Amino acid sequence: MSVNPDLLKERKSATFDVEKLTELLYNGKDKLRRRRYLQNIVFQDKYLQSFKPWWNRTRNEKYETGLKKTAYLDKLKSDLNITDRAEEYYITQAAASSEPSPLGVHGGMFLPTLEKQANKEQIERYLKPAQQYKIIGTYAQTELGHGTFIRGLETTATYDPKTEEFIINSPTLTSMKYWPGGLGKSANYVVLMAQLYTKEKCHGLHSFVVQIRSMDDHKPMPGVTVGDIGNKLGYNSNDNGFLIFDHVRIPRDAMLMRYAKVDKDGTYTRSGDARITYGTMVLVRANIVANCGFALSQAVTIVTRYSAVRRQTEIKPGGEEPQVIDYQTQQEKIFPLIAASYAFQFIGITMLREYFRISGDMERGEFSEMQVLHATAAGLKAFTSDIMNNGIDRLRMACGGHGYSHASGLPKIWANIVPACTYEGENTVMYLQCARYLVKQYAEAVKGKKLSDFMSYLNKPMKQRSSLTTDLRTNDLIEAFEHVAARLIQVAATSLQTLMKKGATMEIARNNSSVLMVRAAKAHCQLYVVKIFCEMVSAVNVDTEVNKVLNTLCQLYAVCGINDKLGDFMQDGYLSESQAEMISNKMLELFAELRPNAVGLVDAFDYPDQVLQSCIGRYDGNVYEALYEYAKGSPLNKTDVHESYYTTLRPLMKGELSVDGPSARL
Amino acid sequence: MSVNPDLLKERKSATFDVEKLTELLYNGKDKLRRRRYLQNIVFQDKYLQSFKPWWNRTRNEKYETGLKKTAYLDKLKSDLNITDRAEEYYITQAAASSEPSPLGVHGGMFLPTLEKQANKEQIERYLKPAQQYKIIGTYAQTELGHGTFIRGLETTATYDPKTEEFIINSPTLTSMKYWPGGLGKSANYVVLMAQLYTKEKCHGLHSFVVQIRSMDDHKPMPGVTVGDIGNKLGYNSNDNGFLIFDHVRIPRDAMLMRYAKVDKDGTYTRSGDARITYGTMVLVRANIVANCGFALSQAVTIVTRYSAVRRQTEIKPGGEEPQVIDYQTQQEKIFPLIAASYAFQFIGITMLREYFRISGDMERGEFSEMQVLHATAAGLKAFTSDIMNNGIDRLRMACGGHGYSHASGLPKIWANIVPACTYEGENTVMYLQCARYLVKQYAEAVKGKKLSDFMSYLNKPMKQRSSLTTDLRTNDLIEAFEHVAARLIQVAATSLQTLMKKGATMEIARNNSSVLMVRAAKAHCQLYVVKIFCEMVSAVNVDTEVNKVLNTLCQLYAVCGINDKLGDFMQDGYLSESQAEMISNKMLELFAELRPNAVGLVDAFDYPDQVLQSCIGRYDGNVYEALYEYAKGSPLNKTDVHESYYTTLRPLMKGELSVDGPSARL
Repeated sequence: MSVNPDLLKERKSATFDVEKLTELLYNGKDKLRRRRYLQNIVFQDKYLQSFKPWWNRTRNEKYETGLKKTAYLDKLKSDLNITDRAEEYYITQAAASSEPSPLGVHGGMFLPTLEKQANKEQIERYLKPAQQYKIIGTYAQTELGHGTFIRGLETTATYDPKTEEFIINSPTLTSMKYWPGGLGKSANYVVLMAQLYTKEKCHGLHSFVVQIRSMDDHKPMPGVTVGDIGNKLGYNSNDNGFLIFDHVRIPRDAMLMRYAKVDKDGTYTRSGDARITYGTMVLVRANIVANCGFALSQAVTIVTRYSAVRRQTEIKPGGEEPQVIDYQTQQEKIFPLIAASYAFQFIGITMLREYFRISGDMERGEFSEMQVLHATAAGLKAFTSDIMNNGIDRLRMACGGHGYSHASGLPKIWANIVPACTYEGENTVMYLQCARYLVKQYAEAVKGKKLSDFMSYLNKPMKQRSSLTTDLRTNDLIEAFEHVAARLIQVAATSLQTLMKKGATMEIARNNSSVLMVRAAKAHCQLYVVKIFCEMVSAVNVDTEVNKVLNTLCQLYAVCGINDKLGDFMQDGYLSESQAEMISNKMLELFAELRPNAVGLVDAFDYPDQVLQSCIGRYDGNVYEALYEYAKGSPLNKTDVHESYYTTLRPLMKGELSVDGPSARL
Repeated sequence: MSVNPDLLKERKSATFDVEKLTELLYNGKDKLRRRRYLQNIVFQDKYLQSFKPWWNRTRNEKYETGLKKTAYLDKLKSDLNITDRAEEYYITQAAASSEPSPLGVHGGMFLPTLEKQANKEQIERYLKPAQQYKIIGTYAQTELGHGTFIRGLETTATYDPKTEEFIINSPTLTSMKYWPGGLGKSANYVVLMAQLYTKEKCHGLHSFVVQIRSMDDHKPMPGVTVGDIGNKLGYNSNDNGFLIFDHVRIPRDAMLMRYAKVDKDGTYTRSGDARITYGTMVLVRANIVANCGFALSQAVTIVTRYSAVRRQTEIKPGGEEPQVIDYQTQQEKIFPLIAASYAFQFIGITMLREYFRISGDMERGEFSEMQVLHATAAGLKAFTSDIMNNGIDRLRMACGGHGYSHASGLPKIWANIVPACTYEGENTVMYLQCARYLVKQYAEAVKGKKLSDFMSYLNKPMKQRSSLTTDLRTNDLIEAFEHVAARLIQVAATSLQTLMKKGATMEIARNNSSVLMVRAAKAHCQLYVVKIFCEMVSAVNVDTEVNKVLNTLCQLYAVCGINDKLGDFMQDGYLSESQAEMISNKMLELFAELRPNAVGLVDAFDYPDQVLQSCIGRYDGNVYEALYEYAKGSPLNKTDVHESYYTTLRPLMKGELSVDGPSARL
């Protein structure tokens, strides 16, 4: 089928070379070519093509398909000698986009934990077989009654020196492990987080490797109760599970002993610096930021293309129906999220780069920069996932009815990425973690200490008035976000101090300032995004036109950021009435400026149709043909006349309804 | 099982009599007793208890269950002689909460359209059999290519005077009817919206009654292609369908002729005032507002109770873990939405009352108040559904991981109510409709015309400064919202004029002011909600304590409304810096004031557990027991060892994976 003429026109009207921007996003021509090569292997694979479309799978089929694809892709990656993380991701995305693998935690948490915390002997015993899937593991931390507060976890591991074993137990209903991915039906081993008791003393949480299913027949081990936790909003390809231990004994050397150990007689000793394990958290959160950017960019690709193809209503009476992307209100829904998609991808890259730089230091025992990285990663994980979550839902609604159908692909993307707001640190908790760091830094700054690098904006004297003009100079924009972040941190810090002066404990004062603290953390994160986005864009050196469109995106991101939180910028008179009006006008001007490049900017993300799986976001724009095909595949359309006609409709129509006798009522 | 002690404590701490507030919500003691009586009949019904829980139903089972419940409930209602709309709703809600009936459009649109637009003969022929389900109908308006812009619909009805028939045709792919509820597999008749052609002239959209399936065997009629449109985010109990006509002939008298007719020779004449049909739209939208309030109140009931039961983290180190509802950040997520739930239910009631008052006038040919009602209903439908949509999702996330499970009941409520943002007028289109009215009213006011009743705030001179103080006097609050609404309407109107003075056509000017117009409409709707909520609350006369807690809710709603859009209130200096700070402080104070009554306020909505269907929102607070029971019922737990172990996991673990030969790749 030929490409929809509206999309053809859009692609011709772009002022920049789309391919050049795509090369930038994927680290150059060669890596981009390699990405496409690998994707095409997947797209041409007959086995991977043989699955029922995801939107018609039952829960059992979702899980089965998840496992089968995972196993097959593992073989495929090994046949192709793939070891690069990015390349692995391209293949997984091409084959199972937004379909979380039941073995995702095996690769993402079980193996890395063993790598970091196992001693040499344990590496041989657990890690090596796990790398070959002889052992299938998951990470069992969250319990029915505790997620956020891991110190409150109730599962116990009590050392018995007589037999040199730990007794693993779930003492209460709420202590059952609940939620770990792959736990329900797949895993036969877990890394278990449990409270370590030895010599009648609790030493807090430690990690243990525990076998939960037999290697012979996969049946639960004696004393182990395990299963799937049931259907969820998304993630239904994954067997998130529950797990209960009834005094299960495991050998002493099943405790991961790199940073702490229990001797034969039960003596507990720490060794090494466990802070190094914090690095993993930063890495995971940096990846979440990047993933939020990817999910948002997929959604925005779908919606931008559809908005270029969809024609509706009339601007002039009797005139041609315009493309809906020409409506200013539609631009307001889409364009800021195109900007955010680019921003978050760039931020993800920066965070990963920072992580690798700083974790090198940490391996050498240097932890000074750890704190700022840790606090910022926590805040940014929350900030980007919040915007992504609201953003994708807003984009879905920008497609009217068709967005609500699974045919659009949008509900699938959304439902499988929103857990990012909750896992690896619930967002509000993350903001508060970030805010506590900010408030401490503020106190240091007040004392006159020169803060390092990114926090140094707290050392600057507060300006009374913004010098922002219609030029939107980068420095003025950044300064505005610095001003608001500094002011809101000050407000939160002042609230804390005031409450404590009135006699509140630190803890009560913190709780009663927490709404203000979250607000401060958000402002700090927004500043980080604006500043890094500006810096990265100004460092880009592709060609004039690419640089120009990226610069427009950057301005748009900043201007919308001000417009969204106008009160914060105006409250102390920093932004004047006329500047506020200017921002509102600039935003509309930037929409108009971006308009000719909208489709080009989403094309540049380079998501093939097989990744988007959207009838309305197709590259060729033949959306209506695709929607009709989708409809025909409905499970209700297997027969012209549905079975329910005979059981229910006909009796209802003939007034002969018996429904097993309404006498059932009494 | 006994009630969770935290909930017991909460219920004791409420400062008001919950039952009295419930009586107020349900129109008095007697009606409340009747509601509970009817609900209990449903809850004790064995047949209705016999269905598989909804979260484990396949698509086919969802549809089948929907039909069976609908048919059975119809019989039940008739056995109980129920004719009152509210009572019907109580029964449906008790039996199938958030499970949209496949025959919902039959009762909600097909029958009412016949009632309003059919002539006497058509009433006998269509309406009477439809009332007895001999005919099952739906309302076929939306097409694949057109939703919002109904004038753009492409389906044609061409009169052929030779045979005295209309030829119904779908001339293009995009002209297929797409989305109507119950169309896919259930309906055998439709009210069809099509462009009427007679004597070579198009007379625009008219309604026709068209048979689409045989009365004998339910097979599609000759020339008709019909089916289900496939799986969606929600509404999967409903067979939303597609429908294509290939030159299908229907008799002349199948056109609904009350307001227009075509004579035998093809002469077209209008009769009566079709504006009366606009009233239906207002009624439907008023019901949507009320339904948004109901859905939000269900979600907020679940989340408030769970937040009282859930304990997490520590405020004091080593101290007891507090109820999460004691965290200020949690209060910020929940309490404004308790206030909104009450506000929207009250607004729904007011709108219905206004509708009945004004539609009485309309029947007498008096249309003067129609316009304001129509514009306000459009805006409020959008405004309340937007807040509900974001609100329920925020509430879901306030429950951490458990909110994401279908066990929480929250995804179900959300997925089945969010279409309210799209159907019966897409929200942005609704805001713009409302805004166009506001801008016209503003022009009238500028000319010195005294506006009627609710719009009269545009006649007032603009105050420079707010007199709002910590007392939060109702008049000052309302005045603040009036000020912002008036100012933003002025900004939108000025933008329109400025653009037109620069040479833009009205249409272009409107489009380039549309972001500002939407903002103005939102401010007007917020004013309406605040004002009516205040008025209704001050008219309540139950007892001092009930009045007091309602007054707190009202203040909280208003204060949060200002805090959310602080920039709008500050931009022209109306609210000062110190007033802005006061608002922020007041909000936190009101959270603390509301805290002891939170559970009481949601209990007062009086949703039985069978309606909420939530493990975490149970009245008795035994959430963990319920979550474990839910998990055990997972479809993956039918056997200890899942089938996939044999097909996939074991071969993977043994390195013997063949997956139909990875040779399938080439």
